Amino acid sequence: MARNFKIVLAYDGTDFKGWQVQPDCVTLQGTLADAIERVTGERVLPQGSGRTDAGVHALGQVASFALQSPIPAENLRLALNHTLPPSIRALELSEQAPDFHARHSAKAKTYEYRILRAALCSPFTARYVHHHPYPLNEEVMAQAAGFVVGQHDFTSFAATDPEKGKDDQIADNVRTIYSSHWQRQGDLFTYAVRGDGFLHHMVRNLVGTFLLVGKGTLEPESVATILSARDRSQAGPTAPASGLFLVSVEY
Amino acid sequence: MARNFKIVLAYDGTDFKGWQVQPDCVTLQGTLADAIERVTGERVLPQGSGRTDAGVHALGQVASFALQSPIPAENLRLALNHTLPPSIRALELSEQAPDFHARHSAKAKTYEYRILRAALCSPFTARYVHHHPYPLNEEVMAQAAGFVVGQHDFTSFAATDPEKGKDDQIADNVRTIYSSHWQRQGDLFTYAVRGDGFLHHMVRNLVGTFLLVGKGTLEPESVATILSARDRSQAGPTAPASGLFLVSVEY
Repeated sequence: MARNFKIVLAYDGTDFKGWQVQPDCVTLQGTLADAIERVTGERVLPQGSGRTDAGVHALGQVASFALQSPIPAENLRLALNHTLPPSIRALELSEQAPDFHARHSAKAKTYEYRILRAALCSPFTARYVHHHPYPLNEEVMAQAAGFVVGQHDFTSFAATDPEKGKDDQIADNVRTIYSSHWQRQGDLFTYAVRGDGFLHHMVRNLVGTFLLVGKGTLEPESVATILSARDRSQAGPTAPASGLFLVSVEY
Repeated sequence: MARNFKIVLAYDGTDFKGWQVQPDCVTLQGTLADAIERVTGERVLPQGSGRTDAGVHALGQVASFALQSPIPAENLRLALNHTLPPSIRALELSEQAPDFHARHSAKAKTYEYRILRAALCSPFTARYVHHHPYPLNEEVMAQAAGFVVGQHDFTSFAATDPEKGKDDQIADNVRTIYSSHWQRQGDLFTYAVRGDGFLHHMVRNLVGTFLLVGKGTLEPESVATILSARDRSQAGPTAPASGLFLVSVEY
């Protein structure tokens, strides 16, 4: 009988074309599948808690996969870390009940978006922040972040998914945000958001909108208006991928 | 009349084929020359304080170059940072006397070599350390480091330079080391060395030899014996580039 595994991963997404397997691209899902195959001889497609885009990082992405191999979980984790590139690390690996699924079983997720406010961005930090040294009213950005807490239809902040019809999108786009706030630590201005789920590009579109508030282009209250409009064109641009981290997934 | 400039650079060397211009390779010297040309219209070849190898980083590499342009130094620095990739930053830029030369005028240099001793190496740190989670006697490595202080012929720790005859090499290989020590900070075990000059691969060959001492393959006193031998084959292997940082150059 197959054993069902849960793996917790950290990765530097800079040099990957996102999570999902694509032909002729180096992806996180594909690289993990290759490593599992090299270690166990079994070809599986690990299911992530969600897709991360090209350039997006993870401190605690979760994936699930089933194996026949009797290898102890900790041995498998160490062997994967010997096989994976240094840009991906298996932090935890555990056997789960057969019905565990990294995406379907997820109850909540936390993302962080890191903006570096210093005049100069060190070459050793540049891959892991969005560098924005220009004036921003951080107080009104903090106010704006409060307007997304609660259950809302986030259509205005979702990338249009070409695979779905318009009715499907509206039905799918209601999410609950449990917390949403900005915090300053030294030169880092970081947005942390926790919710029951996130649409494609949702965090980066929220941050792009908060940046327009910080620049004075929008009022903080506009976030409520934009939510009501259910229209992507009302919100700000998609903030760069380099600042975004999937922090953790809760089950 | 041409103006002579001194630039202080930080860079993540991971994705560069070292400092020196080479055909069909992305190098630090070539990338800097391209940026200067894009900003000023003048093609120059910046002279570094020394070459760093592929994958070696800098916190304070220095280069010099001459320009006709009347652009103020600080404007040039800002324009270069807009033009250079985020993996290279111009930290300082100043006009110097005509006889200043980044290599010939250098009085001392400091390098650091960072070894990560933790069981797991984060994907966000992996480019900037040598990960060595295996047992090491750090105390005897600290003792071994003391043997290189003073004026010595470092032939045993120099990469063989195919462009030089054997007599030239022996004549050139005397260097004075002012300080040489290891220090533990959390999971980082760092070697810092300051001297009047360094031969090709010298710091990485010293570290590779100290690692053999830490593993018990060599006694700390062997470092003195290896120095006297003036024979590269007596010393340890070249430690990986990722752990090495050119920290500063003194004039």
